[in-house]
Amino acid sequence: MKLKRSGRLVDMTRYLMEHPNTIVSLTEFSERYESAKSSISEDLAIIKESFEAQGVGKLVTLHGATGGVKYIPYIKKKAAESFLTSLGQMLSSQERLLAGGYLFMTDILGDPIIIKEIGRLIASVYIHNDIDVVMTMETKGIPIAYAAASELNVPVVIARRSSKVTEGSTVSINYVSGSSKRIQSMVLPRRSLSKGSRVLIVDDFMKAGGTIKGMMHLVAEFECLTVGIAVLVETGGESPKLVDRYLSLLKLGQIKEGTAVPIEIGNYFNYFREE
Amino acid sequence: MKLKRSGRLVDMTRYLMEHPNTIVSLTEFSERYESAKSSISEDLAIIKESFEAQGVGKLVTLHGATGGVKYIPYIKKKAAESFLTSLGQMLSSQERLLAGGYLFMTDILGDPIIIKEIGRLIASVYIHNDIDVVMTMETKGIPIAYAAASELNVPVVIARRSSKVTEGSTVSINYVSGSSKRIQSMVLPRRSLSKGSRVLIVDDFMKAGGTIKGMMHLVAEFECLTVGIAVLVETGGESPKLVDRYLSLLKLGQIKEGTAVPIEIGNYFNYFREE
Repeated sequence: MKLKRSGRLVDMTRYLMEHPNTIVSLTEFSERYESAKSSISEDLAIIKESFEAQGVGKLVTLHGATGGVKYIPYIKKKAAESFLTSLGQMLSSQERLLAGGYLFMTDILGDPIIIKEIGRLIASVYIHNDIDVVMTMETKGIPIAYAAASELNVPVVIARRSSKVTEGSTVSINYVSGSSKRIQSMVLPRRSLSKGSRVLIVDDFMKAGGTIKGMMHLVAEFECLTVGIAVLVETGGESPKLVDRYLSLLKLGQIKEGTAVPIEIGNYFNYFREE
Repeated sequence: MKLKRSGRLVDMTRYLMEHPNTIVSLTEFSERYESAKSSISEDLAIIKESFEAQGVGKLVTLHGATGGVKYIPYIKKKAAESFLTSLGQMLSSQERLLAGGYLFMTDILGDPIIIKEIGRLIASVYIHNDIDVVMTMETKGIPIAYAAASELNVPVVIARRSSKVTEGSTVSINYVSGSSKRIQSMVLPRRSLSKGSRVLIVDDFMKAGGTIKGMMHLVAEFECLTVGIAVLVETGGESPKLVDRYLSLLKLGQIKEGTAVPIEIGNYFNYFREE
């Protein structure tokens, strides 16, 4: 279609946002809009400037044979801090306290806008790590996993507690839950991971880290590599953790009766790099 | 921030796409860009034209006291047909056949781009139904529920097979699985649905419809209203279904040994209305 610059800018913005972390060649855009590459380059410069001024994403230009442009998730440090601070405040309400040191987060995990932002924060950190797949354990980590995977443009695989007829043959491992010390199982469909995949493990909540460690074990069973681990909330009380290196967005402190739930920003900014 | 038209177009496109089904007033945009409302109106006309030419969304203009604009999901009939046809082809591979008449769909349900498109198709149908919340049953319906909920800009609630300590007090019902005839339970956290909510039920696969019927029962327990039911795949063999009115994107026919899996487009276009 032949469009004026204004129409091209709208459509290119939409197209890039719907195809994150995907290289689009100048030729592709040039043919799509029946416009000279020089005009397309100017359009892209305008889009790049707008995204970067808003701190909502980056346009990366690639030169050479695979030349083109890709939109990648990005967030400014200040915006990340303000999001995590307000999320922490939402979670610090005393009504959220549940037995066993857990927090009621179901409503927050059900909010697509919050989830999308959590996914963007996680993806911003791992965008240069060549992630092939995001893995989580059912159930509550699933939306976070999809949100991060959407921004990274990679598939999600979901480990389950038991094998289901709808998933064909599975690989199963046993693991010890870090906090309850019980032996549990975790299964993954045989067809879900190809050998050598670079995996980002994501979950909603980490106490001692037994479930995460189980997922790492499962990744290794498939001869894949755990490249990163990201959790929404870690508990600060239980230490040492069973896993060494992980990213946490929020950290839950020691809970005392009658006071607000102590939530602080996790180790996120140890991993975050403002470019 | 003061921006030229080109910069405004990029930022407004991005902003509207990130806030679907949300009214943005002209005043808001006018203040954000330090520009006259007349300029903003012209910008919106350009964005509207581009979205509608591409058939990827609509800009709805609202007049009066709540005046403004909102971006709503939309898909052209032809684009929906072509998406469903190619999804059907992906699913018709014989390797996907599993015991019990199930199909292996885990890979497809793990693909964020496919899931996003499925969500858009579902949301396009229910966008004018004032949905308050999307409900699904763990596990495989979850990504579809989030995808539809993102486009509708409403929260997701997830029914589970058993209650979890992390969800506080729950409401539980028993239901009879339509195909296996076994009695099963389904629980939902007490805090997850407020009375009177208009609920869209979403799932990945429907045989006789027992699980869907269970969810409807649960919706009624919370004094809420089931406004719509949407499933990715229904089986054609088992009839009558336990639910009367539902939308299906794809329909799985009778499976015969040694032939391709018979998949056709479901009843989607009975509900779809091209505007």
